[in-house]
Amino acid sequence: MRVFGIDCGTEFTGYGVVEMDHDARSPQLTHVAAGTIRLSKKEKTPQRLAQVFAELTALMSLHAPDCVAVEEVFFSANAKSALKLGQVRGVALLAAATCGLPVAEYAPLSVKSSVVGYGLAQKEQVQFMVTRLLGLDAPPESPDAADALAIAICHIHTAQTQQMQEVKR
Amino acid sequence: MRVFGIDCGTEFTGYGVVEMDHDARSPQLTHVAAGTIRLSKKEKTPQRLAQVFAELTALMSLHAPDCVAVEEVFFSANAKSALKLGQVRGVALLAAATCGLPVAEYAPLSVKSSVVGYGLAQKEQVQFMVTRLLGLDAPPESPDAADALAIAICHIHTAQTQQMQEVKR
Repeated sequence: MRVFGIDCGTEFTGYGVVEMDHDARSPQLTHVAAGTIRLSKKEKTPQRLAQVFAELTALMSLHAPDCVAVEEVFFSANAKSALKLGQVRGVALLAAATCGLPVAEYAPLSVKSSVVGYGLAQKEQVQFMVTRLLGLDAPPESPDAADALAIAICHIHTAQTQQMQEVKR
Repeated sequence: MRVFGIDCGTEFTGYGVVEMDHDARSPQLTHVAAGTIRLSKKEKTPQRLAQVFAELTALMSLHAPDCVAVEEVFFSANAKSALKLGQVRGVALLAAATCGLPVAEYAPLSVKSSVVGYGLAQKEQVQFMVTRLLGLDAPPESPDAADALAIAICHIHTAQTQQMQEVKR
């Protein structure tokens, strides 16, 4: 199973691709790719959204994931920033639909719990655990890329748990 | 000048295409098309967004407008609905960018002032004035289509005013 995680943001949108070979003897998480889509502040919103869409669809085609995982949005933000974030998120969901990929959503609390074991973990803890779980030599290039990898790992963990529950039934 | 107005909504997204021949002896607004994109509640968000995107890009290609006009979002809504609306709005802006069209934004107050002459006009007043200004036999098919036509008319009025100011200089 290969998962494409996305951490949407109005300035920086992180992505991270993680793979898990469920049939292997000792299943292990593998880091496939991760990075940050940086939006130019000089561009107007429609052009910025076009950039996110073009980069995400290109990355999805390149890495051929089985599904996309995104974070459910945390609603403490004000309505204005929620709208701006929604615009980027809408385009990310459209990219997944255009590539024919199913989308799974996880609450930030679930993502942190799944990766760090603690729902209110700090950004640095998430980065540290993502680096460890994927056996990376250095932390991901940005906190956004680390968050995207964490979302992908959360989806793999959740899918594993569901699979184990199905086996038990 | 032909303008494609969009009134974004999470369930119903209205569109309206209005033309103005500035070179004609007595410039008059002409209704080109209007309608409502209804999103199925049964579909998941990515599929709903894909539907809005597909319909909007098809309509923009069909009617070949010079530009797109959208409403600036009114921020009294809560963060959750702002995020959902933002998702649709992001996809609408992306559709415009994909079709190579510039986008103009107008505050709801400006749209109502421009069409009804009163910024706090009711929906029914907007529908009535849109029907009258465009010389339609019946009101537009939905309040969303009427709002989209109003946004397009607002853009034409604004462009006219700017043109007149430039002539005066």
